Formats: sequence, structure tokens, C-alpha cells
Amino acid sequence: MNKADGMNYAPQGKPRPVVKPGEFVFSAVRLDHGHIYGMTNGLLEAGATLKYVYDPDPAKVERFLKTYPQAKPARSEEEALSDPGTHMIAGAAITSERCALGLRAMAAGKDYFTDKAPFTTLEQLASAKAMAAETSRKYMVYYSERLHVESAILAGYMIEAGEIGKVISVTGFGPHRLGAAGRPAWFFKRDQYGGILCDIGSHQIEQYLHFAGEDDATVQLARVANYNNPAYPELEDFGDCALVGKNGTTNYFRVDWFNPDGLRTWGDGRTFILGTEGYIELRKYINVAADTANGDHLFLVNGKGEKYIHAAGVTGFPFFGQLILDCLNRTENAMTQAHAFKAAELCLLAQAQAVKIK
Amino acid sequence: MNKADGMNYAPQGKPRPVVKPGEFVFSAVRLDHGHIYGMTNGLLEAGATLKYVYDPDPAKVERFLKTYPQAKPARSEEEALSDPGTHMIAGAAITSERCALGLRAMAAGKDYFTDKAPFTTLEQLASAKAMAAETSRKYMVYYSERLHVESAILAGYMIEAGEIGKVISVTGFGPHRLGAAGRPAWFFKRDQYGGILCDIGSHQIEQYLHFAGEDDATVQLARVANYNNPAYPELEDFGDCALVGKNGTTNYFRVDWFNPDGLRTWGDGRTFILGTEGYIELRKYINVAADTANGDHLFLVNGKGEKYIHAAGVTGFPFFGQLILDCLNRTENAMTQAHAFKAAELCLLAQAQAVKIK
Repeated sequence: MNKADGMNYAPQGKPRPVVKPGEFVFSAVRLDHGHIYGMTNGLLEAGATLKYVYDPDPAKVERFLKTYPQAKPARSEEEALSDPGTHMIAGAAITSERCALGLRAMAAGKDYFTDKAPFTTLEQLASAKAMAAETSRKYMVYYSERLHVESAILAGYMIEAGEIGKVISVTGFGPHRLGAAGRPAWFFKRDQYGGILCDIGSHQIEQYLHFAGEDDATVQLARVANYNNPAYPELEDFGDCALVGKNGTTNYFRVDWFNPDGLRTWGDGRTFILGTEGYIELRKYINVAADTANGDHLFLVNGKGEKYIHAAGVTGFPFFGQLILDCLNRTENAMTQAHAFKAAELCLLAQAQAVKIK
Repeated sequence: MNKADGMNYAPQGKPRPVVKPGEFVFSAVRLDHGHIYGMTNGLLEAGATLKYVYDPDPAKVERFLKTYPQAKPARSEEEALSDPGTHMIAGAAITSERCALGLRAMAAGKDYFTDKAPFTTLEQLASAKAMAAETSRKYMVYYSERLHVESAILAGYMIEAGEIGKVISVTGFGPHRLGAAGRPAWFFKRDQYGGILCDIGSHQIEQYLHFAGEDDATVQLARVANYNNPAYPELEDFGDCALVGKNGTTNYFRVDWFNPDGLRTWGDGRTFILGTEGYIELRKYINVAADTANGDHLFLVNGKGEKYIHAAGVTGFPFFGQLILDCLNRTENAMTQAHAFKAAELCLLAQAQAVKIK
């Protein structure tokens, strides 16, 4: 757990390989966001073999190689994309460039695994949909705030097991530490990061759709603000949004860059899932003011009582192994393409509809 | 703390009289909601003298007299209202009848202290405003989820002291145990209870205005649903709402009747107050799955660190003493009339604008 900011959140789990070395090969292309480390960890732990690394900035490649010395620096993006033995291109480009990289990777016959948010415009989304239809390649997204958080994985299992009845409403808080000094310039450019609802809001919408079992939803409220960062006029330091699902479940989430300096981690992320027979609260990264600074705190309340589960080490991160097998077997167990695209679409629509409060 | 439901939530504090016996006299008229016990406790602890009790239902009077044997049963409402030595009429009538009682009390020259929600229609609000202007009597409201919760009082003090900088957003959860079998029939009649945003939503809006220091706001989203109580077709078992304040602060709250049977109290009420320099979380009635079943848990995070304060016994309930002195001195330290009316107006507007989801 990194105190500085969420950009370097790169969980490590237990190795649970689903393939033998060399059976599933990926390359890391574009290292603009630190999430590439979490993505790489997840894939490696699931048995994937890392082949190339490429970024136009040699310093980023050098840093990556210190963590993953087995990677081979590619001389060009083309070298990584055209490699016949590579199954997947994993990338964490500047947000506005993620789609273009994905289109190139898919055109080269690779599945694509990108950091969130996967798009900054609806036009990009349309082009990715078209490319997926044309090539049957995957455009998968690292929605880390669910996929790489064991308490969130456990919550999904509990919902499936009926522990809280039928889900009716999901509320999420995604506060993040700004740490402005350590952020690259693109992070503060609206066209490049896409707006707060598109960026960190994408996690929240993905979680809502997953936990509520919704495959479509409508944005009913979207607001953004720059409350306290006049030095970064294009930054939205606050956003919130309400959705209603096709099946009538409700969602609200709030995201911001106001994580206080005194918090022991980068953000007190919460998810509250209300069902007809109970509710679940996740205190994902910290149980504030409690003794330990670790994460993955799950609270379950239903007809049987109140239960606390420290979910760290309980579920692992099944997404990555499932994703590898999905790529090899052309299945959709890790995440459907429709779900990945729908979460992206809704965060773009929310951003487009957002009222600027301040 | 009563496990059964919030209707019988009647906190007791330490006596902190602000007047001598007989200096401030009130009567309890209409006992339809159990909140009359909390209202009476608060006034008595602040030194008020209870004179009459009246309700058309003798059983309710009898029960009240068991708790407060010093009260004298009035033969009629008129007897209580016309008593020359009485300063205030405290009432917890059926919600739709609260205003009419208030108008009668104010016309009789008394200040009025009603359970929330104070109105079920905007017409009632207008008539109370007119009566207040005409008589200079007070129409005060028992917004118990702040006024009778020490952690909430402490949060207000901390905000005033600048502990979290400037407040930018407030989020509230007001889940309640339904306990349908123990509820009176009027509770399930839409015209009588006023809808969920009007009823338990009124607490939330009052808190938002107070904590954010807003004196006006606009409803941007309002939703209600009956997700899982088809036997009570006029019950709204879920509602949520988003406001934006005149000064640009934001609010969201969610209220529901889905408190699970296994929770050790009637509702896991929460308030989250986000400021530019920190945040406060209130776990008002329980710290779920923690060892004790008591309430008033305040969590403060700011630049100095994370802090937990068990607020029970810390602040007492200053509202009641202030209210008594306000009535005697014609001041507005407990709560301004404008604030009480504005919170009421906004919950009525939210209810009127609410989209029915299910």
C-alpha cells in the first residue's frame, strides 16, 4: 500500500498460475500510469509470461525493468505489437491515447488490456466496438478498484450467494490523494485525462453494474467541481453521479481528490451495497482510525447478525487467471466485452452530462 | 437504544437546566409518534416544567403518564392550549396534522415544537410562515437525527473550529428498521406520512444545511421506490436525493426501511462530511460489527491524522436549553425559524419532484 497516491497502487497477490510458462504471452506498452504495475503483477501471478516492454520514454522503461527484469525492451511499439508469439498487449497510456493503442493492438491480432478509463470520448468507444466486432479481439479494462481488491471480490461472491437478498442500491466513495507535485502534466489536462467522472468515476460505475447485476443504466445526475485547486483550472477535484439501472436498482457515487494528508493510505474508498435482506460495506484500503493500516475490510449485516471479515488473502484476484483463459479459449468469464464497454459508455455519458458546480 | 425501531428513539441526557422549575412551562399535545418522548426528555433535562398532556386516545395518555407522572391529563386540547402559564406546546401528531396543531397553538399565543417532518404539503408550510409572521410565535422542529445525537453536535463544533477546512459535500444514510407490525396505520398512508423524502428525508436535509452552512439549496435529484413491500403499496421503502447549496456545496442522501433484523439497533445511520482539509464520518447509532452496541462514533481525518472519538456524553444536547432560552428571550440560538422552514421546504420540494423508480 503506497501512502503517496493511488497512481502507484499495485497489489501483489499469491501466484495462482492458470497456464504454464510461455503458454500466454503479453507485452507492456505505454507506461504513463502506474497502474501498469498492478496489471503486470496480476497477469504474472496468474502465470502469464511477460515479453516486451515499450514506452517512448526510456526512463519509464528503465524503471519498469527494475521491477520486471525479465522483460525485453522493444525498439518500437511495432516490434511489440507485431510479435507473433504475443497474445495480449497491456497498456497504461495517457487516457486519451488508450483507445488508439488498443486499435493498433487489435488490428495486429492481439487482445488488449488497458488501464481505466479506457476512453475519453464516445467516438473512441464506437471505434473500439467496431474493431472488436471486426477482429473478435478483446478490449479489456483494468477496473482495479474491484478487480484488484479482495474485499470487493468477496462482496461479489456474497451477493451471488444471496447473503443480502436482492441488491437494490449501491453507493460508492472514491476519494483519492492528489499529490499534485508527483503527477504528470497530462493528469491536469481535461482533454487528456477525460474528467473526473470518466477517470476515477469509471471504477464506480463498473462496480455498480457488477454488484447490482445490471447490464444497462441511465445517468440521472452528474456534477463536477473544482472546489479548491485553482492552480489546476482543468482539474475536476470533485464529482458525483446517480444512475438508475434497467432493472430499477439505484446508484450514487462520489469521487474526489481531497484525501487528507493525515490518512495512512491514498484514499478511504468505500462501497455500500444495500439489498432487500441485508447490506455490505467495504472499507477497501483502510479501516479509518483502527489499529492496522491494512485494507480489505468487509462488513456484512443481514438477518443473521453483524459480521466483520478481513478479506485480505481470502479470495485472491481471480480476474487475471480468468482473463488469460478467456483470451486462450475465447470465453468471457473474467468480464464480458459488453460489460467493459457499458461501464465505459456510462462514465463518458455522465461526464458529458455533468453540470459544473464550481 | 431501542432495538425495535427508531420510532421509540428517545435519548436521555444529563440534566443541564437553564431555568428554574416553573420558569418555562410546556405541554405535550398529540402523542402519535414516539418522538414525543425524546422531545419531552430533552425539554425536561433542560429545566422545563411539563404541565398538561393531551391526546384523543386515552391509551397513549396513560402510557405517557407512566413515564412522566408529573403531567396532568388535559380534558381537551383547548385546555392545554389556553392555559395562560404555558409557554410551549410540544406535539408529535400524525405528520399531516402537525401543522394544523401548530397553527392552533400559535394562535393561542404559544410557541410550537413539533416532531419532524413538520409538514406534508407546501400549503401547510405557507400557512405556518404566515402565522409565524403574524404572531411572532416559533414553529420549531425536532430534527432528532442531529439535535439529539451527540456525535452530530460534536461534528458541528469541529466544523466550526475549522478541523476539516471548508465543507464542500455532505452525504447521509438514514436506514431505518421497518417493524411494520408495530407501526400505526397512518404510517403507511402516503397522505398522512408524506412520503419517505418528506418524512425521514427531512433529517438529512436539515443536517446538510447545518453542516454545510447553507441557507438555501436546490433539489437536483429525487427518487423514491417501493422495492420490497408490496403489502404496503403507499409505503416508499427507499428514497434518495441530491441537492446543491446556494454557496455551491453538494449533498446526497439515501433513506430506506431496509435495516436488517440482525443489526443490534434500529438503523446504521451515517453522515459523511467532506471538507477541503479533511473529513468527518459519523456512525451515529452503532459501529457495525464492533464490540459495543452503543452509538455516537465520530471519525475525524485531516492533515494531523486519523482520530476516533466516542462522543457519547461529550456534548450533551444543547438544543433544548437554547430553545427554552430562545422562547423566553425571543432569540434564535437553538435554530433559526428560517432554517427550520427551509429544511422543511426542501424536503417537500424533493418529495414533489421525486421520480418513482419502482
